[in-house]
Amino acid sequence: MITINENFLKLQAGYLFPEIGRRVAAFAKANPTASIIRLGIGDVTEPLVPAVIDAMHKAVDDMAKASTFKGYGPEQGYSFLAEKIIKNEFNSRGVELDTGEIFISDGSKCDTGNLQEIFGLDNIIAVQDPVYPVYVDTNVMAGRTGIAEKNGRYGRIVYMPCTAENNFIPALPKEKVDIIYLCYPNNPTGMVTTKENLEKWVAFAKENKAIILYDAAYEAYIQDPSIPHTIYEIEGAKDVAIEFRSYSKTAGFTGVRCAFTVVPKALKAYTKSGETVAVNPIWNRRHCTKFNGVSYITQKGAEAIYTDEGKAQVKKIIDLYMSNAKTIRKSLSSFGYKVYGGENAPYVWLKTKNNETSWDFFDRLLNKVNVVGTPGSGFGACGEGYFRLSAFNNPAKVAEAMERIRTMDN
Amino acid sequence: MITINENFLKLQAGYLFPEIGRRVAAFAKANPTASIIRLGIGDVTEPLVPAVIDAMHKAVDDMAKASTFKGYGPEQGYSFLAEKIIKNEFNSRGVELDTGEIFISDGSKCDTGNLQEIFGLDNIIAVQDPVYPVYVDTNVMAGRTGIAEKNGRYGRIVYMPCTAENNFIPALPKEKVDIIYLCYPNNPTGMVTTKENLEKWVAFAKENKAIILYDAAYEAYIQDPSIPHTIYEIEGAKDVAIEFRSYSKTAGFTGVRCAFTVVPKALKAYTKSGETVAVNPIWNRRHCTKFNGVSYITQKGAEAIYTDEGKAQVKKIIDLYMSNAKTIRKSLSSFGYKVYGGENAPYVWLKTKNNETSWDFFDRLLNKVNVVGTPGSGFGACGEGYFRLSAFNNPAKVAEAMERIRTMDN
Repeated sequence: MITINENFLKLQAGYLFPEIGRRVAAFAKANPTASIIRLGIGDVTEPLVPAVIDAMHKAVDDMAKASTFKGYGPEQGYSFLAEKIIKNEFNSRGVELDTGEIFISDGSKCDTGNLQEIFGLDNIIAVQDPVYPVYVDTNVMAGRTGIAEKNGRYGRIVYMPCTAENNFIPALPKEKVDIIYLCYPNNPTGMVTTKENLEKWVAFAKENKAIILYDAAYEAYIQDPSIPHTIYEIEGAKDVAIEFRSYSKTAGFTGVRCAFTVVPKALKAYTKSGETVAVNPIWNRRHCTKFNGVSYITQKGAEAIYTDEGKAQVKKIIDLYMSNAKTIRKSLSSFGYKVYGGENAPYVWLKTKNNETSWDFFDRLLNKVNVVGTPGSGFGACGEGYFRLSAFNNPAKVAEAMERIRTMDN
Repeated sequence: MITINENFLKLQAGYLFPEIGRRVAAFAKANPTASIIRLGIGDVTEPLVPAVIDAMHKAVDDMAKASTFKGYGPEQGYSFLAEKIIKNEFNSRGVELDTGEIFISDGSKCDTGNLQEIFGLDNIIAVQDPVYPVYVDTNVMAGRTGIAEKNGRYGRIVYMPCTAENNFIPALPKEKVDIIYLCYPNNPTGMVTTKENLEKWVAFAKENKAIILYDAAYEAYIQDPSIPHTIYEIEGAKDVAIEFRSYSKTAGFTGVRCAFTVVPKALKAYTKSGETVAVNPIWNRRHCTKFNGVSYITQKGAEAIYTDEGKAQVKKIIDLYMSNAKTIRKSLSSFGYKVYGGENAPYVWLKTKNNETSWDFFDRLLNKVNVVGTPGSGFGACGEGYFRLSAFNNPAKVAEAMERIRTMDN
């Protein structure tokens, strides 16, 4: 008799973004003339930059001729891209890596979801609360957690509250934890971390033989030069940290799909009996067995981000989104909201007024002024009463959304 | 203390194709002037057809303008592609499906590797031997198997021998099995199955409350009109079977990455206590949580395969590869080899002479005449003494490879 993986039955309701999609679709169907402004799912709106477009056209042409056609590429990605990643993302910040430590993939969602597979089910995970739901849900599916409690939290997960009360800086866990998910710039709060704080995490991981899974998908939005872009700027981080990076928000690749993960060769895990095992070859085996590389056309497009014109074009778009973030921050503040983030990240995290719940605020925003955002409680119990607005839209739409929110409150 | 998933430590040596890659690279390095002909890894050589190239250029242009730019698409794929899949691949054969049963992905390797995740670890898997290594390795990683025995076989897997002795038609298992992997047209043997034989499997699965994972990645190569292209041509198959399909070999997408999986809504699994659970929503949840859809550009390319010109162009390439298969069959037969497959599949499966081992034959072929094939033993114990040659190359190269093999034996 075929049995189901019953861990899937522990999962709460739908995954957050499909649920938002459903509510928005239902509203749009009932109100076909409403002009909805989406600051919700965190999807980019600006088209791919010309350098990427040109490179992709060339790559498509390569695929049209037998002499330049590319079949299966290396599962880990082409070295033409891995080398540029190392030079531009890491060497430029004093970090040395080799191409065997870079795994190019079709997205950070996949990578952050899949990576837990290579670790034992006995490990205890720690997550920031609020948190990107994929970290938690994929551990539930794997069977690494207990069942969900009334507040939506699962057993056997250490939740690290990040709220206005602790300025969104979680305390180091007092419990035993083995896998620590950290996301900076943070999704959803838009907050960043200092080098000093990351140093504490690296030291904590070393002391506890834990591993940090560091999601830096939004690093391109960092404006403050003192904020680290990669955890490997911290000495010793290669011994304890895996880093996730993505072109989705950096270069508008949400519909193109390209990301990469760094698994340093120095990183070690252990068997139950205490023998050390290098993590890099285990992830390599997983990656080669269950993945077949990213489209050549996509990788050529990603490579073009690292040309001089590509860098300048991408920077212009990031500047545009960050100017939106500024508009959102400024407007909401002037409407009397407490706002966080949005200074080194494309997300603004607002506190609702009068303890309105996140979903009530979502429904009111959607139904009264046709603006879509993301309810903070969808990211965890500590997100209740908060709300995420993304800066991904054009400035006119963002300005209009702010004007609508102003009228909603009056 | 971070522990590793020790199931990974059960895995034998390297994954087959990287191992072949390593041996070929070492030979090429030592013999830089050798002209190597590759009939090994099963990678296509003909470029993408013009209809696909045109569609991809248009899609790249869509990504260059805000008005037509596509960000995140549906995780399950765009309906423009799913609808054409249903019409062309299924309705044309009398099979009805709805778009909610189609999951578009970046490859059948990923899908066949990932799908086992949604089932319990207590299920017993059955595989044909020889077999595509991904089915076995991903179950080893998940912990569904025992350790490897001396012959490379893992405990808790039911191996179903497919050899010349049973005309490569495995007997129905006598043991309890819950997940049955079937691959037709078969990789590596190139053999196909009749409707009558598939009917037996569907009846067996129903009787035993088992599920069939049906890999039909090579269906486009079927020439004999009596051979089923999809398992859903068999009545009742929707109750017991998931089907994997791919554009890799159909339309040369090995470097582009697009495939799809059919998970019928009628398909049920069970909890340990015997309650029924619909499989489709469980896979949907997995797919949405760990995957973010296929590149829009890729999906537009795949859509073009279903235009009239696309179909005609793709058929021409398949005809070319099948004419290669004929050349290989004819030549090898005339050199005194027993050959199988290659009539409804792009693979020819040969029996080595004088009980030469598969890897000895591989090394002799590579070193003496610089032709690369795939050792049968890499696909399982029952592949020992067999060897796979693929028809993916241009006709001149295939003819030259045959001439070289002729001289090798003399």
